[in-house]
Amino acid sequence: VSTAGFRRFPAAVLAEQARALLSGWGFPPEMVAAAADALVDADLMGIDSHGTALLPIYRQFLDDGRFNKAAAPRVERETPASALLDGDGALGQWPATLATDLAVAKARQTGLAAVAVHGSNHFGAAGFYARRAAEQGFVALVASNVFSPAIVPTGGRIARFGTNPLAFAAPAGRHRPFLFDMATSTVALGRVKKAAWRGERVPFGWVLGPDGQPTDDPDLGWSTRLATPLGGTPELSSHKGTGLAAMVEILGGVLARATLAPLRQAPSEGRRPGGIGHFFLLLDPGLFGPPETFRDLLDEMIDALRATPPIDPAQPVLVAGDPEYAARDERERAGVPLPNALVDALRGLAEEAGVPFLLEEGKQ
Amino acid sequence: VSTAGFRRFPAAVLAEQARALLSGWGFPPEMVAAAADALVDADLMGIDSHGTALLPIYRQFLDDGRFNKAAAPRVERETPASALLDGDGALGQWPATLATDLAVAKARQTGLAAVAVHGSNHFGAAGFYARRAAEQGFVALVASNVFSPAIVPTGGRIARFGTNPLAFAAPAGRHRPFLFDMATSTVALGRVKKAAWRGERVPFGWVLGPDGQPTDDPDLGWSTRLATPLGGTPELSSHKGTGLAAMVEILGGVLARATLAPLRQAPSEGRRPGGIGHFFLLLDPGLFGPPETFRDLLDEMIDALRATPPIDPAQPVLVAGDPEYAARDERERAGVPLPNALVDALRGLAEEAGVPFLLEEGKQ
Repeated sequence: VSTAGFRRFPAAVLAEQARALLSGWGFPPEMVAAAADALVDADLMGIDSHGTALLPIYRQFLDDGRFNKAAAPRVERETPASALLDGDGALGQWPATLATDLAVAKARQTGLAAVAVHGSNHFGAAGFYARRAAEQGFVALVASNVFSPAIVPTGGRIARFGTNPLAFAAPAGRHRPFLFDMATSTVALGRVKKAAWRGERVPFGWVLGPDGQPTDDPDLGWSTRLATPLGGTPELSSHKGTGLAAMVEILGGVLARATLAPLRQAPSEGRRPGGIGHFFLLLDPGLFGPPETFRDLLDEMIDALRATPPIDPAQPVLVAGDPEYAARDERERAGVPLPNALVDALRGLAEEAGVPFLLEEGKQ
Repeated sequence: VSTAGFRRFPAAVLAEQARALLSGWGFPPEMVAAAADALVDADLMGIDSHGTALLPIYRQFLDDGRFNKAAAPRVERETPASALLDGDGALGQWPATLATDLAVAKARQTGLAAVAVHGSNHFGAAGFYARRAAEQGFVALVASNVFSPAIVPTGGRIARFGTNPLAFAAPAGRHRPFLFDMATSTVALGRVKKAAWRGERVPFGWVLGPDGQPTDDPDLGWSTRLATPLGGTPELSSHKGTGLAAMVEILGGVLARATLAPLRQAPSEGRRPGGIGHFFLLLDPGLFGPPETFRDLLDEMIDALRATPPIDPAQPVLVAGDPEYAARDERERAGVPLPNALVDALRGLAEEAGVPFLLEEGKQ
């Protein structure tokens, strides 16, 4: 098994491989299609942690009983501007995509719409759904609660929230949509693991030791899995990150009547398929004036931000979404780079599932 | 003029003093009432920077031509679930209160409502409006753009956003509403000024020097007025704070067709009365299930968070709103402490305006 280097694959090939694996594991076609689309989109956008690298993890979740292969998501409650969906334990990308599209249809009629989902699972990158709505003309806010606790509230020494993502997208005119997608932790724990591999220290403010104090030791931080809320330390206002994580838990968990991360204590509760909740809010900018004036004004704002005098002339100021769109442009042209270790893992999964392995031909 | 110590005053007396001054300056009764209510509420909640301490600043804004004393806020556009208000250059608390109450009325009918305001001014504490909605049963998100640039986008060396506040409140059952109210900067510049008075250094990550690099010199930071976005430094993910500030500018500025802080270049543009925008989004938790289950679940979440094992047993983990409600309980009982320098300033303003000065009798 090679552990260094990577090879590049066309997105279409990755999508076919993802569909082959998910189908081989027994998921039905609609669920497979929604999940593969969202995973490969994350790969294209440079969000490697939320792309096909999730497939080995999802295989583990499947073994853990966290997915319902026979899931049939359905609308439980509905008004002209809102809906509550039961994900029925599906791969989260499916109910999340259904919820986004339902919110788009409602917002076309009413100007604004809120759709919540419970009984779901990990839905990949929150920004995928926000951008999907923005590309159809809507301002979108997306939140999700998360299965595994990670974020330690300021002053505490155990994790109470998952990394609780919040995404926000808005349609521009000349520019691609404004696209903001953040975990409410300071950094993803994956960056701590990477530092450990490289033998580097991490900045104080990324992770905590078992005593709840900041540590710069990535092995310690990876073992405790105690992530700080955005802000990092109390003196840099980590209480704001704690508040944002709680806001996401209220939107993606309490509103949706999902299983709340802070209350996920009993293993029986935790292992029940589909305890996760999501929240999708869409707004038509035409409610407040011609949609064109919104898009023009957002273009102007984006231009002004990019024109901010930079500290380093070689590093212009970026607007949310710029790094992801740059990655997409590059990867659509040159292919998505997958680490060789991931390619090997996917080969093993394909052999085990008895489905075709399609990633022999990657480019260096 | 005394510069140390403080005296305490009943909230009702502060409100009467605020009304006397604002009336004396020529503002009409409805505008005066809305502004005084919001200012004194901030004093009660311990948000001293957004209470009656604003009156001397508002006097300066008035001289600068930033308020329209004859303002008549009006609804410019409306649907069953949305409205756009023109604040017409009023003190921001008035159109913001009108917008909140209009959103409550709409959300009672439709389950969710979005109201934007343009042509407004500084509206005080964003949490005031979010809590007002939560106390009537709604989940509320409030955002505002801000006149004076303060936040430097990550990698830049000039400010592009104001401190762009974001507030979020939600109704609980046994507990008072969850109440989260943050500036999207790491800290308020007022804390930098306080450190300068005390001769203390500030943490790296609060403010920047003229070169855009972090400084621990509060005098330098106060002179540049270059605040960092939440996160503080690039290695602690200040790009997330930048994204949040931009999200607030889109909600409170672009949606509302307000004057955007990043575009506020020409002095003529900047001094036009009422270029500020606000945004109020309300959701009925009953859209997704019985409202009681929402409130019960939020109670449980609040209980679980407060029960988080603390680093220091003497400092329990706090939930958003806890410090403000504790301040309110104490100040309703003992009075609101005003620094003597502020009392002196208010005396000067009262004399100048020829209105009664009501703060002679404060308690030490």
